[in-house]
Amino acid sequence: MRRRYSLIFSFILIFLISFLYLWADEGLWPFNMVPVELIKKKYGVTITQEWLDHLRLASIRFGGASASFVSPDGLVLTNHHVGQRAIQNLSTPERDLMKTGFYARTRQEELKCPGLELWVLQEIQDVTDQVLSAEKPEMSAAEAAQAREKMIAQIEKEASEKSGLRAMVVTLYSGGMYHLYKYKIYTDVRLVFAPEFAIAFFGGDPDNFTYPRYDLDIAFFRAYENGQPAKTPHYLKWSQKGVKEGDLVFASGNPGSTGRLLTLAQLEFLRDINYPWTIANYQRRRALLQKYSELGPEQARIALNTLFGIENSLKAISGYQSGLLDPKIMEKKAKEEAEIRKAIRENPEFYREFGQAWDEIAKAQKAYAEIFKPLTFLERAQGFNSVYFSMARNLVRLAVEKQKPNEVRLREYRESNLPSLERSILSPAPIYDDFEILKLADSLAQLKEELGNMLEVRWLLENKKPEEVARELISGTKLKDLEWRKKLLQATPEEIYLVDDAMIKLALLVDPVSRAWRTRYEKEVESVENTNGGLIARAIFKLKGTTVPPDATSTLRLSFGVVKGYREQGRWIPFQTNFAGLYERAKQFGFKFPYELPPSFIQKKNNLNLKVPLNFVATVDSIGGNSGSPVVNIRGELVGVLFDGNIQSLPNRFVYTEELARSVMVHAQGIIEALLKIYGAKELVREILP
Amino acid sequence: MRRRYSLIFSFILIFLISFLYLWADEGLWPFNMVPVELIKKKYGVTITQEWLDHLRLASIRFGGASASFVSPDGLVLTNHHVGQRAIQNLSTPERDLMKTGFYARTRQEELKCPGLELWVLQEIQDVTDQVLSAEKPEMSAAEAAQAREKMIAQIEKEASEKSGLRAMVVTLYSGGMYHLYKYKIYTDVRLVFAPEFAIAFFGGDPDNFTYPRYDLDIAFFRAYENGQPAKTPHYLKWSQKGVKEGDLVFASGNPGSTGRLLTLAQLEFLRDINYPWTIANYQRRRALLQKYSELGPEQARIALNTLFGIENSLKAISGYQSGLLDPKIMEKKAKEEAEIRKAIRENPEFYREFGQAWDEIAKAQKAYAEIFKPLTFLERAQGFNSVYFSMARNLVRLAVEKQKPNEVRLREYRESNLPSLERSILSPAPIYDDFEILKLADSLAQLKEELGNMLEVRWLLENKKPEEVARELISGTKLKDLEWRKKLLQATPEEIYLVDDAMIKLALLVDPVSRAWRTRYEKEVESVENTNGGLIARAIFKLKGTTVPPDATSTLRLSFGVVKGYREQGRWIPFQTNFAGLYERAKQFGFKFPYELPPSFIQKKNNLNLKVPLNFVATVDSIGGNSGSPVVNIRGELVGVLFDGNIQSLPNRFVYTEELARSVMVHAQGIIEALLKIYGAKELVREILP
Repeated sequence: MRRRYSLIFSFILIFLISFLYLWADEGLWPFNMVPVELIKKKYGVTITQEWLDHLRLASIRFGGASASFVSPDGLVLTNHHVGQRAIQNLSTPERDLMKTGFYARTRQEELKCPGLELWVLQEIQDVTDQVLSAEKPEMSAAEAAQAREKMIAQIEKEASEKSGLRAMVVTLYSGGMYHLYKYKIYTDVRLVFAPEFAIAFFGGDPDNFTYPRYDLDIAFFRAYENGQPAKTPHYLKWSQKGVKEGDLVFASGNPGSTGRLLTLAQLEFLRDINYPWTIANYQRRRALLQKYSELGPEQARIALNTLFGIENSLKAISGYQSGLLDPKIMEKKAKEEAEIRKAIRENPEFYREFGQAWDEIAKAQKAYAEIFKPLTFLERAQGFNSVYFSMARNLVRLAVEKQKPNEVRLREYRESNLPSLERSILSPAPIYDDFEILKLADSLAQLKEELGNMLEVRWLLENKKPEEVARELISGTKLKDLEWRKKLLQATPEEIYLVDDAMIKLALLVDPVSRAWRTRYEKEVESVENTNGGLIARAIFKLKGTTVPPDATSTLRLSFGVVKGYREQGRWIPFQTNFAGLYERAKQFGFKFPYELPPSFIQKKNNLNLKVPLNFVATVDSIGGNSGSPVVNIRGELVGVLFDGNIQSLPNRFVYTEELARSVMVHAQGIIEALLKIYGAKELVREILP
Repeated sequence: MRRRYSLIFSFILIFLISFLYLWADEGLWPFNMVPVELIKKKYGVTITQEWLDHLRLASIRFGGASASFVSPDGLVLTNHHVGQRAIQNLSTPERDLMKTGFYARTRQEELKCPGLELWVLQEIQDVTDQVLSAEKPEMSAAEAAQAREKMIAQIEKEASEKSGLRAMVVTLYSGGMYHLYKYKIYTDVRLVFAPEFAIAFFGGDPDNFTYPRYDLDIAFFRAYENGQPAKTPHYLKWSQKGVKEGDLVFASGNPGSTGRLLTLAQLEFLRDINYPWTIANYQRRRALLQKYSELGPEQARIALNTLFGIENSLKAISGYQSGLLDPKIMEKKAKEEAEIRKAIRENPEFYREFGQAWDEIAKAQKAYAEIFKPLTFLERAQGFNSVYFSMARNLVRLAVEKQKPNEVRLREYRESNLPSLERSILSPAPIYDDFEILKLADSLAQLKEELGNMLEVRWLLENKKPEEVARELISGTKLKDLEWRKKLLQATPEEIYLVDDAMIKLALLVDPVSRAWRTRYEKEVESVENTNGGLIARAIFKLKGTTVPPDATSTLRLSFGVVKGYREQGRWIPFQTNFAGLYERAKQFGFKFPYELPPSFIQKKNNLNLKVPLNFVATVDSIGGNSGSPVVNIRGELVGVLFDGNIQSLPNRFVYTEELARSVMVHAQGIIEALLKIYGAKELVREILP
C-alpha cells in the first residue's frame, strides 16, 4: 500500500520535473546511458548502438583530456594545448618545437613522446550491486566508504588480471552508481604534427575562454604497437562539407568534473573558501612565472607550459566563481534544491531515507573549511611545488603502500594505477633545476606564511630563507637521475628510509601529518559527501528517473547540441570565423604578442582561401577535459575538434544554461586548409582524406 | 654408516671436552636444565624436582633483576638498588625516602609503587621444534629469522590467551633451543621497608664491584592481589644458622646477558667498537649528572638514581672490557674456538653443516661496525636521552604497530608485551623537566657531533643550541600529563600524526631512519648471529652434549657454588664481613661520603652485636640482573641476598673463571640484626622468622 503510494507519487513528480530538463541540451552522458529517445524526440535523429560503439572506440583519453583516431593507422587528433607538455618535453633550447612547430613528413621522423599514454575505452559494466554489497547496515559513513573502497580495489584487480586491460571503477552520482571501465592502453605515442604555439594559441590568455576565436589549436600524434603504427579500424572519417547553423553535432570526450549535483552548501564552500584561495594562489604563481619568463627567452621557453596551465586554470576557475557569485544562478540552484527537499519532506518514506542528506553534507562543509588549509598545503602538496617533491612522495608512499594488501592502499597506489604511476616517475622529460627552485621556494614561503607554527615547518624553514632551503633541497636530491628513480621504485620502505636524499627526506618529514589530514578529509568530508551525495542521487532517481546525467568524472561522455551563434550585450556573434578574421584581428593588435602570427602565416597568407572557416561554436555541453574532443555530425563524421568554451559557459560547471554558453571548435575544413596551404603537409592530408 | 661414524666421533669428543667443564661451578642454568647429576657427583647432594619447583615459584623477576618471596603473605626481599627507582618515585623534596629510609609498621602504611611489576615463572615448555618448523630450506637467514619471529609471536599469543599468564618464548643457545616461559604477574606492589641509601650503598661507587663489603643493600616490598596481601605459599624460609666456608649454596635469579658462547669476532667487536663507545658515553653522562648534582640537594636527589645506574654500568662494562683486554683471557677463548673449529673441520659432515658459521658471524661484525653509530644514536635513542622521548616513541610506534598482525610487529609491541608497555607509559612516577632538559640537551649535542650531517639532525639542530632545542621540545610536550598519555595510548596512527606535541613530532621525525637502521641491524647482524650462533650451539651440543649451559637471557636461572674466601695480590680475603668491619671502614674514611653512616647507625651502634656477619662471598656464577637473587643452602633456606660481584667476576661475562671471581651477598643474619637493633622492625622480623 505504502509502496504503491510512493510509486504513483514518483511518477507524477517525474512527469512534472522532467519538463525542466527534457528540452535542454544539458548533459555529459556516459556512453551506456545516452538518452537516445530524447534525441530522437527532439531532433528526429536515431542514434544506433553501432554508431555509439564506433565513436567510443575512436575516442581517446589523452592525459587528463581528449583526442580521437582519424586514420586506420593510429593517427590521433587532439588540441595543441593538450599535447603541449609532450611537445615541450621534446624541445631543447636549440630545437624549440613550441616556437617552430613540427611536421614529420615520414614515419621515421615521428618523435617518440616519453611517458605519454593513450587510453581507449573498450567496455563498460555496471557493478553497483557488487560494490554496495560491501556495506553493512551497522557501518558508519566512514566505515562504509572504506568497505566500498576495498571492494572496488578487488573488482579492479580481478578485472585487470582477467582482461589484460586497465580496469577502473567509476563512481557516478556520488555513489549512486558504480561502473567498471576497461581501457586498452597505448604507451608508444609519437608526435606527427604541431603548428607553432603562436597560431595554436593565437590571442593567448586575453582571448582564452572567449569567442569569436581564430586558433589552430590542433596537433597530430600516432599510436604505435610493437614498433609499428597501431591498427585502428575504429577511426573518424573527416567531413568535407563543414557545418551550418542549426546542425546537430556531438562531442565525445573526457570532461574532468562538474558539480551540478552538488548541494548549495557545497557550492557555498567553493565560493567562500576553496575558490578564493585557489584564485589567489594561481595569481601569485602566475606573477612568479611571468617574472621568471622575463629573464630571457630560455626561461620563457621553460616556463611556458606551466604558465599556460596556470592562466588557463585561473581563467576557468574565475569563470566558475563568477557563476557562484551570480545571485541569479545561486537562486536557481537554491530553488531547485528547495523543491527536491520539499518533495522529499512530503513523503515520510523518502524523508526517512533521504531527509538528512543535505544537512549532513552541510556539516561536512564546515569540517572541510577547518581542514582546508593544512590539507591543501601538505597532502595536496601546494607547499612543495616541484616535480621533485611529487616524485619523492610517490616513491616514498609507493614503497610503503606496496607492502599492504591492494584494497587497503591509498587509492593512487592500487595495482590498477601502478603502471601509469611508474611510467610517470620514469618519464625522461627534462627537469630544469633553476625553475624547480623558483617554484619550490615560493611555495615554501607560502607554507611558512600560512602554517609557520607547525613544528615540521619550523624545522624546515625557521631562521632560513625559503629560497636557500629550496636550493639545498634540490641540490641535495639525486632524483633527476632516471636510473636512481628506477632503483628507488623497487625499494623497500626501510631502504627508502635510509636514502641520503634531501627530497626523499622532505617527503618523509611531512608524510605522517599529510596522511593524517587526508584521513580526516576522507572521514569527515569525502565519505560523508559520497554517502549522502549517493542518497541525494538516489532520491533524484526516484523523483526524476534517469533524465539527469551524472556529474563528470574524467571519463568518456557524449554530449550534443546545435551549431548556433548567440547575442552578447546586444551584439550578434556568428557561429563561425574564418582565416580572414584571423588576419584582421592580428592586424587590430599590430601583430604583437599574443596576437603575433608565426612567419609561416605571414609568408604564405596568399596561398590561403581566406573564406575557409577556422573556428565555430555549438551548444554542446563541455567542461575542462573535453579539450581535444572530436566533434561529429549525425553521420559520425568529424566536423571539428573542441578546444574551449566561451566565458559564459564556465558557470555551466554548476548550473547548465544554454542561451549564451558555447563550446568552441577548430573547424575540420580550416585544419585541412592550413595543413595544405601553410604547412604543405600533403602526406598527412592524404592520410586523413584518402 | 656415516651416521654411526659421527655418533662415535661425538661421544669421544664429549668425553674429552667434558673434562674442561665438568668440575667448574660455571653455569647459569635454566630450571629445566639443571645438571643434578653433576651436582650429585661433585657435592654428593641430591637436588629434587620438588626442591627446584619450590625455589622457582619463590623466585621473582623484579624489573630487570631479581627478588624472592620470604613470607606466605607476599613479602618480597630484594636489593635496595633493585627497588631504588620505585623508592625514588615515592620520594618528594619533603619526604626523601632515599635519604631517610622507610618502614611501614602496619600494612596500611605500605606505599603503592606505580608501574612496578613482579613476574613469577609458572611453567617452562620446549617449543624448539615448533619454532624451527617455520623455517624453509630455501629461505635466506633474514627470511628464516622473520619466519621464526612470526611463529614465536603466534605461540606467545596462543599460550597467553589459553593460560591467562604472560607467555614469552625465550631463545637459548642463540637459537639452538626455544623455550616457552609462562609468568604470573603481580601489578599491585607496595614498599614495606627500605634502609637509608647511605647504608644500602655504603662505600658508593668506589666500593661497588669490590670486596670486602659492608652494605645493607636490601629492601622489602609486598605483592597484593585484589587489594589484599597476596597468598604466596611458595616462599623461602629464613636460615638462622648462617653459612660457613665450603658450604654449597645456590642463587636463583634473572641474569641479564652473558656472552660465553660468543665467537672471537663478536668479542673483538665488543672490545674494539661497542665498549669503547659505551664507556666514553657513560663517562660523559656521569660527568654531566655529577655537575648537576652539585647544584643543590634537590638536584642531587633527582639525579641520584640515574647517576647510580650509570656508575654501576660504567664499572660493570669497564670490568667486562678489562677481561677482553686481557691477552690471557682472549687467548683462552681463541684456543677453545680453534679446538672446536678443528674438531668440526675434521668431520666432513659437521663441516658442511657448521663450518661456515664462525666466518659468517665475523662478516656480520664488520657490518655491525659500520652501522653501530647511527643505530646507537637513533634506533637505540642515545641521541634522545629523555623519558619523554621514550614515551613518545612508544606511543607513536604502538599506534602504528597495533594496526599490524601480531606476528609481524616490532617485537616490543606484540600482544604479550603490551600490558607491561602500557603500564610503563602510564606510570605516574614524577618527571623533573629541568633534569630531562639537561639530559636531552647533552645527548642532542652528542648527536650533532656524531651525525651532524644527517638532514634530520640538521633540521632539528642546525643554527641552534642543543640546550635551546631541548628546552623547546620539553616545553612543547604535554606528555607529563598522565591523562594525555592515556588518551594517546588509544590513538590511531593518523590521530597521533596530527597531535600538536613537540616530542611526538620528534619521534615521528626520526622514526623512518631509526627503523631503517634497525632493519639493517636485524638483517645483516642479528639474524646472521642468531642463525649461525644457533649452528655453533648445535655443533657444541654434538661435540659436548648439554654440559655447557646457554647464555643468560634475563630469565630465571639457577647457579651454584661454595662459600669461599680468596687470595688477592697475596692478601687473603676472608669469606665474610661483619658490623664491626663496617664501623672500621667508615672511620678509615672519616665518615665522609660515600663512607658516611646514616644517623640510625651512629645512634644505635651500641644496640648491635658487632660480630654478626654482614656480607659474604661464594663462587656462585652471576651477572648483572642477578641482583636481588635469593641465595639458599641445600635445604632451600635463605642464607643471603646477592647484590654484587667482585671486580674479578666481571670478565666472567665472556669467559668463566673461579679462582678469584666471587658473587657478593648480604648475609641473612645481618639483615635480621639490623632490622631488630637499628630499625626496631619487630613486626617485619616476626613475619620472616615466625
